[in-house]
Amino acid sequence: MSFDEVVRLGQQRGFFFKTAESYPNTPAGFLDYGPLGVGMKNRLVELWRRVVVKRDGMLEIDGSQILPKAVFEASGHLAGFTDPFVKCATCGSVFRPDKLIEEKTGKQVPEKLGDADYDRLMAEAGVKCLKCGSRLAGTTRFNMMFRVGIGPGQEEAYLRPETCQSIFVDFPLLFKTQRVKLPIGIAQVGRSFRNEIAPRQALIRLRELNQAEVEVFFNPKKADDARFDSDLARVLAFRLPDGADVKLSVGEAIQKGVVPNKLSGHLLALVTDFYEAAGIIPENIRLRVLSDEDRAFYSRAAFDLEIKLSWGWVELVACNYRGDYDLGGHARVSGSNFTVDEEGEKVLPHVFELSLGIDRSIFAIIESSMKGEGERRVMGLRPYLSPTQVCVFPLVNKDGLQEKAREIHARLRESFEAFYDESGAIGRRYARADESGVPACVTVDYDTLKDGTVTLRDRDTREQSRVSVEDLSARLASITKFPAISKAVPAG
Amino acid sequence: MSFDEVVRLGQQRGFFFKTAESYPNTPAGFLDYGPLGVGMKNRLVELWRRVVVKRDGMLEIDGSQILPKAVFEASGHLAGFTDPFVKCATCGSVFRPDKLIEEKTGKQVPEKLGDADYDRLMAEAGVKCLKCGSRLAGTTRFNMMFRVGIGPGQEEAYLRPETCQSIFVDFPLLFKTQRVKLPIGIAQVGRSFRNEIAPRQALIRLRELNQAEVEVFFNPKKADDARFDSDLARVLAFRLPDGADVKLSVGEAIQKGVVPNKLSGHLLALVTDFYEAAGIIPENIRLRVLSDEDRAFYSRAAFDLEIKLSWGWVELVACNYRGDYDLGGHARVSGSNFTVDEEGEKVLPHVFELSLGIDRSIFAIIESSMKGEGERRVMGLRPYLSPTQVCVFPLVNKDGLQEKAREIHARLRESFEAFYDESGAIGRRYARADESGVPACVTVDYDTLKDGTVTLRDRDTREQSRVSVEDLSARLASITKFPAISKAVPAG
Repeated sequence: MSFDEVVRLGQQRGFFFKTAESYPNTPAGFLDYGPLGVGMKNRLVELWRRVVVKRDGMLEIDGSQILPKAVFEASGHLAGFTDPFVKCATCGSVFRPDKLIEEKTGKQVPEKLGDADYDRLMAEAGVKCLKCGSRLAGTTRFNMMFRVGIGPGQEEAYLRPETCQSIFVDFPLLFKTQRVKLPIGIAQVGRSFRNEIAPRQALIRLRELNQAEVEVFFNPKKADDARFDSDLARVLAFRLPDGADVKLSVGEAIQKGVVPNKLSGHLLALVTDFYEAAGIIPENIRLRVLSDEDRAFYSRAAFDLEIKLSWGWVELVACNYRGDYDLGGHARVSGSNFTVDEEGEKVLPHVFELSLGIDRSIFAIIESSMKGEGERRVMGLRPYLSPTQVCVFPLVNKDGLQEKAREIHARLRESFEAFYDESGAIGRRYARADESGVPACVTVDYDTLKDGTVTLRDRDTREQSRVSVEDLSARLASITKFPAISKAVPAG
Repeated sequence: MSFDEVVRLGQQRGFFFKTAESYPNTPAGFLDYGPLGVGMKNRLVELWRRVVVKRDGMLEIDGSQILPKAVFEASGHLAGFTDPFVKCATCGSVFRPDKLIEEKTGKQVPEKLGDADYDRLMAEAGVKCLKCGSRLAGTTRFNMMFRVGIGPGQEEAYLRPETCQSIFVDFPLLFKTQRVKLPIGIAQVGRSFRNEIAPRQALIRLRELNQAEVEVFFNPKKADDARFDSDLARVLAFRLPDGADVKLSVGEAIQKGVVPNKLSGHLLALVTDFYEAAGIIPENIRLRVLSDEDRAFYSRAAFDLEIKLSWGWVELVACNYRGDYDLGGHARVSGSNFTVDEEGEKVLPHVFELSLGIDRSIFAIIESSMKGEGERRVMGLRPYLSPTQVCVFPLVNKDGLQEKAREIHARLRESFEAFYDESGAIGRRYARADESGVPACVTVDYDTLKDGTVTLRDRDTREQSRVSVEDLSARLASITKFPAISKAVPAG
C-alpha cells in the first residue's frame, strides 16, 4: 500500500485522521485516533509492556508533560534542540534548508550541518522560494520546543520534547521509594511535543506525538555483567555508517565495537523482539548504526531501529547510549543528588534508552499487515493487536436470529472487544471485518437456534467451522492470546 | 486520613508525587504518577470503560491536545474561560479575589461574580496582600488556557482546557465513518490543561489534569425515549440549590424538574454506578444541582457528582446538559455541517456530558479505602482496582524457597500484576502489601517444596489458607475479576 492509501484507509475505518478536520486550514502535524485506533494503540502498548517492560521487571511512570524551564537547561534542549530554517524575503514562507537542497539536487544532505554550510549548499544548488520563486534569507535556528507561560506571571515552562525527561528528574525519588537496585529500567508512555518547521507526512512526523520510552539505569562498570549473556547468540541486522548491511550476533557486534556493551546488546535484542511480536518479519527490521556526526547531542552510541515499508525504510525507535549526560546535567542544575549507593560506592548511573514512536509504529504495522487479492483487502494484524477481536453477525435479520446474536455478543463483550453488526449482506460484513483486522467472525444462523452452534470464520484462511456457543470463549481466548512474557533477565 | 496524610502515603508508596521534585521552586499544580499510580489509573480507566463506555456501546477516541484558535472561538473558551485575579501593587503577588474574601470573612463567595462585585467585597472586608500587606489593584481577568505558537510563524493555538472539544469537532467524521445512529456516546480519556491562578491542593486542582469524558449526542425530541426507562426506579441523592438534601428516584427527579429528561437521568445513574463499583459507599455520593448562577456558560442544567472525604465534599464529575451549544458553535465558526439525518429530518444533536476527573477520583478512592487499626494501615481497594494484584514471598531466603517463589511469580505475572519481594521479615512484607492495596499474598514455605501448596493470605480478613499452586491462577482470577458490564441500554 502507498502512504496515501494507508492514510485513506485509516480515516475510512476510523483508525486515525487529521485533527479538527471539520475546520479549514488547520495546522499540519496533529492527529486524532478514532475508535479502532484507540483500541490498537492500547493493545500495542500492552504488548510493549509485556515484551519490553515486564520481561525485565522495569517500573512504569506517567509524568507531567509541562516541565519547568530549568529541566530543559539541564537537558540541553533549550540550547540544542533546534532545527535550521530559511524564510522567503518576499512572501514569508518558511522551509528547512536541507529539504530544499535535497529536492533541488536529488541528493541527501548530511544531518547537523552548520548554518553557513546550508547557505553555501543552497547557493550552489540555486535554491529559490518554492512558493513565489524569490530569494531566500540566510539560515537561522528555531527551537522546536513549545513554550507555555504558567500563571498570570507567565512563568517560563515547556511541553516536553521527549517523555524521558520526567524519568530522569524523578529517578532519585523512584530509586529511593521503590526499593530497587541497579540495573533498573524505568518506562513511560505519553505525549511529547516537537514544533516541527514544516511537517508533511501524517503519523511519520507529528508535532504532538505518542512515545513509549524506557531508560535503563546501570553502573557503567557492570555493563558487561553475565546477567546480559542470554542474548549473545541472537542475530541482529545492522546497517553500518559506511552503508554496509551486516548480520551479526550480539556477541560479534560487541567484539567488533558496533555495540558498546552487553546491556546495550540485550536491549537492542529486546526491541527487535517487540517488532517481531508485532508482526514485522525479521527481513524488514534493521538497526542503523549512527555515525558520530549523525548522533544527537546527548548520545555516545546510537542506533535507529528501522522498518521497511513500501516506500522505504522508516525510523521507529531511537536507541541511545546516553551515558551520564542526563543525570549529570540534572544534578548540576537542580543541586540535588542523583548518585546512588552500590555496595558502599557512590555511582552516577549511565543510561541506555529505547525511545519508541507509537504513532509511526501503528502506521508501519498497518502498512506491513495489509494483504490484497483483487477487491479483497485484509489487515492481517496479529490477533492480539486487533482492536476488534470478534464480530458477531446474525445471518438474516428475522426469526429471532438478531436476538440470539445480540445475546452472544453481550456475553462475548464481557471478555473480548466484540462488535455486533447486522447491516448489509453477510459477505459485505466479512469484508469490512477483514479490512479492519478482525481475526474472528461469529455468524448466528438457523442451526444456532436448533443445536447451539455458530459459524466461526478465520480472517486469514477464510475457513469456517461450527463451534458450540459454550466453547466460543475458550476458542477466542486462544486466538487472541498475547505471547508469553518469558525470557526474563534476572532483576537487579 | 487527612489530606496531607494521603499526599504523604502517595509519595512513600510511589502512587504520585510533585513533578520535578528534585528541582527547587517548581510551579504548583503538576503531578507525576509512580508505578502504583500508573497501575491504579489504568485499572480505574478500564472500570470506567466497562461501566460507562461499553455498557452503552459508546465509541472512544483519543484526540490531539493542541487545537487551533478557531476551535476555542467556537467553544467560547477564548472569551469566557477566565478567572478573576488581583495583583499586589507593591510586591507583584497574585491572588484570586474570591479566595481572599473567603479567607478574611470565613464566608463563601458566590461563583461567577462580576469584577466590580469582587472589588466591593474586598473593600468591605478590608483585604490586603497576604504576602506584604500592601494595597491590591482592582480585579482583572486571566484566560486559563495555555497558549502555544505553532511553527516559526507562531500560529496561535491552545492546549485544550477540556478533552471534549476533540469529540465535538470530530463528531461529523465519526458519525459518518462509524455507521452509528443517535443517540451515540463518544468517550475520551486524556490530558487537559488549565492555567490556574494559584493552585494549592495537589491532585484536587491541577494545571495539567487527566479526564475521562463522555459526550452523548441525541435528538432532543427523543430525550425521553423508552430505551432510558431502565433507571427510572434508581434512587439517587441530590443536594438542591437551596441546600436541601433529598433522595429521589430518577423518575421522581424528572417529575419535579430536578433532572431535565430520562437520558440525563440514565447518565447520572450510570456515573453513580461507576463510583459505587469503585468502592465508594452510596452514603458518600451525592449529585449537587447547580443553580442558574453557578452553571458554566455552555450549560442548560448541571450536576456536580461529589464524594464525601474526611475533609468535606469534593467534586469529581461535572455532569452538564450542554444542549446544542457546542455543535452549533463549531458549525458556525468552521462553516461545516454538524447536523445528522434522522429519518429524513435534519437534526442538530443535543449533548449531555459526564466530565470525570481521574486524578481527583484516584485521590478520593485512596482516601475512602484507607482503614487503620493502630500501626496497621490497609488500603482496602476493590481488588480489580489494585495496581498490584498479588505479591509472592519466599518465607525465608534459603533452601530453594527463593527459586520456587520466583518460579511461581514468573508464572503468575503472565496473567496478573504480580510483585516478588524477599526483603525483610514476612510480617513487614505483609504490612507493605496491605498499605499498597494488594488483595492477595502468596507465601512459599517448606511445605511448598513437599506438597506443592502455598499460603494464600487475604488482605481484608488476614485469613490464610493453603492452596495448591495449580489452583492459584483460578483463585486469583476470581478475586481480581472486574464486575460484569451488563445492564446495557439498547444501542441507537
